[in-house]
Amino acid sequence: MTRRIRVIGIGAGHPDQVTIEAVRALRSVDFFVTADKPRKDGADDPLLAAREALLARHLDVVPPVIAVRDPERDRSPDDYDQAVVDWHDARAAAYEQVLLEHEGDVGFLVWGDPAFFDSTIRIVEKVLARRKVEAEWDVIPGISSLQMLAARHRIVLHDIGQPILVTTGRRLHEAKESGADNILVMLNSTIDLEGFETWDIWWGANLGTADERLVSGPVVEVAVDVLTARIDVKTKVGWIMDVYLLRQRS
Amino acid sequence: MTRRIRVIGIGAGHPDQVTIEAVRALRSVDFFVTADKPRKDGADDPLLAAREALLARHLDVVPPVIAVRDPERDRSPDDYDQAVVDWHDARAAAYEQVLLEHEGDVGFLVWGDPAFFDSTIRIVEKVLARRKVEAEWDVIPGISSLQMLAARHRIVLHDIGQPILVTTGRRLHEAKESGADNILVMLNSTIDLEGFETWDIWWGANLGTADERLVSGPVVEVAVDVLTARIDVKTKVGWIMDVYLLRQRS
Ligand SMILES: C[S@@+](CC[C@H](N)C(=O)[O-])C[C@H]1O[C@@H](n2cnc3c(N)ncnc32)[C@H](O)[C@@H]1O
Ligand SMILES: C[S@@+](CC[C@H](N)C(=O)[O-])C[C@H]1O[C@@H](n2cnc3c(N)ncnc32)[C@H](O)[C@@H]1O
Repeated sequence: MTRRIRVIGIGAGHPDQVTIEAVRALRSVDFFVTADKPRKDGADDPLLAAREALLARHLDVVPPVIAVRDPERDRSPDDYDQAVVDWHDARAAAYEQVLLEHEGDVGFLVWGDPAFFDSTIRIVEKVLARRKVEAEWDVIPGISSLQMLAARHRIVLHDIGQPILVTTGRRLHEAKESGADNILVMLNSTIDLEGFETWDIWWGANLGTADERLVSGPVVEVAVDVLTARIDVKTKVGWIMDVYLLRQRS
Repeated sequence: MTRRIRVIGIGAGHPDQVTIEAVRALRSVDFFVTADKPRKDGADDPLLAAREALLARHLDVVPPVIAVRDPERDRSPDDYDQAVVDWHDARAAAYEQVLLEHEGDVGFLVWGDPAFFDSTIRIVEKVLARRKVEAEWDVIPGISSLQMLAARHRIVLHDIGQPILVTTGRRLHEAKESGADNILVMLNSTIDLEGFETWDIWWGANLGTADERLVSGPVVEVAVDVLTARIDVKTKVGWIMDVYLLRQRS
């Protein structure tokens, strides 16, 4: 019998924002694999603890969770895309090793939804392409942080019948230059709102956790609140993940 | 005590693609309100049956489900946006009526995720703005059809670090003209892929249901399969809802 690899979206921070289908998938596997991204100060990856809490809540017996330490990544490469590809190759080798060392069905725990800004699907494809590991695989969607943002602010992510552009912090200004007037931004190391003076913002950090923060309003009025809240959360919790929607006022 | 209005995302067709949080919300209310969109041939809204199956599966006792018949909508208005606004006003009045006639907490059942191409949030805002109904309200995210598309094709919705534009069928060509090269399209009355000859497509219909269909590949090779599958599904099931991703080949 072929073993199974299941890529499971587990939501973005709230242990009950996992689907019935995902819970069933969590219960179906023999062990879990998850990425361990230790903090620069050497402390544990805070998301590791969130994932463990989620498993403890939904499983009677929690099977082994193997945290694969992320390979070192070139943070200021000449060629950003190539650096990411190299890094994915290194991760594929690391995951392959784990799969060769352990038998049975495996669940890859993915923060939010595997469809957005996550490399697990690409890594599984790479592992299978290397042909040392043989498996069937499927993907179970999860609630993404961008949906949590919308739910907490009680908004639709676009105006009636209008488009929404989902992008990264580093590509925000390029998105605006292309003419987009409704932009959702993830992966923000910093937030630079220059040029967005006539826009509104809906911002959220650590959504779904006990330390969730929300700010919304015209950029000119609340940009300072966003920047202050970012520092607050970081100081209080030790980590921050934030996502926001920018919309040109009509 | 103020009554509660809960806007609950119930996923896009699969009864187990509902979160634990959503199930808890479903169990917390006294009655449900949902939109009834009867088919042109007079048959019942097929989504009504799907919603009932979902409730039967997750609730021991199913409270009343009040299907609010959608007001007539001007299908070929001079001013599309204004027509939608008028239609939302008529719907708000209809929902207000139901809330005035029934006591207790209410759950609004929303297909997919309320954050994408759904009017429930705007209607609840309108109902509350009319000030005849008083309530607290919250929004519970659900798995959207666009996430189902990604999960079933086992893809990430964008290239590494790249943006994704989510739009409607009627705005697809405008999206391409703006320079977008990775476009997710919902609300398709027809599909017109002219000009997309160098793109790849991942298409899915009736996702999560027993009649799910998937097609993917270069547009030049599979466009015919998509159009054929659309007709097939429509003929067999009586209704079709489809969503697709188009990406310019690099
Ligand atoms: C590597 S991406 C993963 C996204 C994930 N797959 C999803 O669907 O949410 C990480 C980014 O997601 C966003 N994010 C994830 N969890 C979040 C949370 N709980 N609150 C706010 N933003 C979050 C932040 O923008 C963060 O930089
Ligand atoms: C009014 S919009 C509602 C979208 C919904 N809120 C969501 O998050 O999926 C309806 C459109 O969603 C897409 N859709 C909804 N359910 C679907 C399904 N089961 N399979 C494929 N597409 C679906 C289709 O593009 C359809 O025209």
